[in-house]
Amino acid sequence: MKKFLNTAETMIADALLGLSAAHPELRVDFDRKIIARAGGTRRGKVGLVSGGGSGHEPLHGGFVGTGMLDAACPGEVFTSPVPDQILAATAAANGGAGVVHIVKNYTGDVMNFQMAAELASDADVAVETVLVNDDVAVKDSTWTAGRRGTGATVFVEKIAGALAERGASLSEVAAMGRAVNAASRSFAVALTACTTPAAGKPGFDLPADEMEVGVGIHGEPGRRREKLGTAKQIVATALDAILSDQPIAAADATIVMVNGLGGTPLIELYLLFGEVSANLNRKGIRIARTLVGNYITSLDMAGASITICKADERMIDLWDAPVHTPALRWGL
Amino acid sequence: MKKFLNTAETMIADALLGLSAAHPELRVDFDRKIIARAGGTRRGKVGLVSGGGSGHEPLHGGFVGTGMLDAACPGEVFTSPVPDQILAATAAANGGAGVVHIVKNYTGDVMNFQMAAELASDADVAVETVLVNDDVAVKDSTWTAGRRGTGATVFVEKIAGALAERGASLSEVAAMGRAVNAASRSFAVALTACTTPAAGKPGFDLPADEMEVGVGIHGEPGRRREKLGTAKQIVATALDAILSDQPIAAADATIVMVNGLGGTPLIELYLLFGEVSANLNRKGIRIARTLVGNYITSLDMAGASITICKADERMIDLWDAPVHTPALRWGL
Repeated sequence: MKKFLNTAETMIADALLGLSAAHPELRVDFDRKIIARAGGTRRGKVGLVSGGGSGHEPLHGGFVGTGMLDAACPGEVFTSPVPDQILAATAAANGGAGVVHIVKNYTGDVMNFQMAAELASDADVAVETVLVNDDVAVKDSTWTAGRRGTGATVFVEKIAGALAERGASLSEVAAMGRAVNAASRSFAVALTACTTPAAGKPGFDLPADEMEVGVGIHGEPGRRREKLGTAKQIVATALDAILSDQPIAAADATIVMVNGLGGTPLIELYLLFGEVSANLNRKGIRIARTLVGNYITSLDMAGASITICKADERMIDLWDAPVHTPALRWGL
Repeated sequence: MKKFLNTAETMIADALLGLSAAHPELRVDFDRKIIARAGGTRRGKVGLVSGGGSGHEPLHGGFVGTGMLDAACPGEVFTSPVPDQILAATAAANGGAGVVHIVKNYTGDVMNFQMAAELASDADVAVETVLVNDDVAVKDSTWTAGRRGTGATVFVEKIAGALAERGASLSEVAAMGRAVNAASRSFAVALTACTTPAAGKPGFDLPADEMEVGVGIHGEPGRRREKLGTAKQIVATALDAILSDQPIAAADATIVMVNGLGGTPLIELYLLFGEVSANLNRKGIRIARTLVGNYITSLDMAGASITICKADERMIDLWDAPVHTPALRWGL
């Protein structure tokens, strides 16, 4: 296994030390494994919490900051955070106006966030949950009843986070998060498997000339294996899957993300984005905003995902709002 | 070869299409392969141009924009841009106050930028050249007389770019670029080789339990091969090489970059940064500013580099100045 590591056991703790040292605007609780804004949540602002297994960086800790999350709680690699940890993150994010949990749809995450929400409610912290389930590749998967939550999480955290920053209520922020999820669809393709530090070897075997079409962010199987296609073919496959699930009219605006899964260089992501742009242009679909880079990854997996949000004017306006986090920053 | 590609021949052109589509604030000249600010260079502002072989993205095209470069000229993968292309980039960047060429120290780049500078001079455009040669790993290398230019390029482009934005003269901007280079040192370690699209296979063989210590950004050999060490050991090796070349006193401030070479996920880069921070703390060296991510890559190579700039107050102030490019953005 070729990784920059001390030991597999200390990987998350060691990475949190680096995140903390690199970003003094974050406050990292090393015991509980919580990443929060150094200044806490503004009194009266709705708090946003997200979390899930580690291995998807910058998600979620890299999205903590002004205009996005108030706290994140990373679990072990590809493992849900535990309820007590989520509860502590909820308390850290609570500014007295309630807390929104943004939860990717995986069985462990859903269960643990639900338990934490109940515990928070017992402590008189109002919690609303936004479930993210944007991946159109498969109906159910290894670790999911229903669709997996993937790239749309970034859109939900940014747009709902901006609305909370403007002082919206708990129900308004949660409703916006749900609307963004409902408007978003994703599809991913892997060229290689990822290697978890615990396993020490790739999670699956993929022949040298094949790709996994519709892969999940933990290396879960997708729809099928195929011979490696051209970038143009791969993009056509992904966009067909996305647009057949949610048609987009020429008048609609979209926010489009081409996201790397960890081991794919930026030049290939831009190359894919060029194909996405050309393909959508031919269909008369307008790209209003874009994001190209590594935002929700799968350790060292070579691969990419495409996420499209059919965004209304309000979502675009909130997308443009200032944000200051380790991984997304503009206007501040 | 597992890459998102149409053909190896069209890789750069296809990626430029994506860069252009994703960033309307850039103007891409597809014939000449030049990336410039859409609005051109402000009249009277010193222009900054950089370029070099492709495969190091986001360098250089991802650093074009307010507060950094005015134009970039990417060559083919790991191949210098040609003099006519550099000349055209120089013309695009010229706002009437002269142009600074930022050149990484590789024989082809140095020769072609020098020819372009002479041609520009014939056309009455004053050019000053800043040569970047920060890599302490080897004295001479496969493609270099003298030290290779690597991570310090990002610091030079940011800090000299900010000074140009403030209206400094050609000689002042060039002097600042040279000062930043003189204050910066880098060292890199590779866990895997990269694969160029033309070759279709890894550039060198590296056994499953070994790393290349002191590797260059094209996969050039470093100082030696070693058994893969822990992150702590790797960081100690890199920092010893850097600090023995340029001692840093406890009173000095530093800008520190931990940079991924393309195939290394962010969680490992943060883990390395944690070790860098702990190591420098033990030595009493103050980290004033940080950058963790993929900024100067080597296609899909798994690996990382560390760059340290012994920065004075003026450099820190210019580092903090607003920047709006695809790959670095704050304050705008």
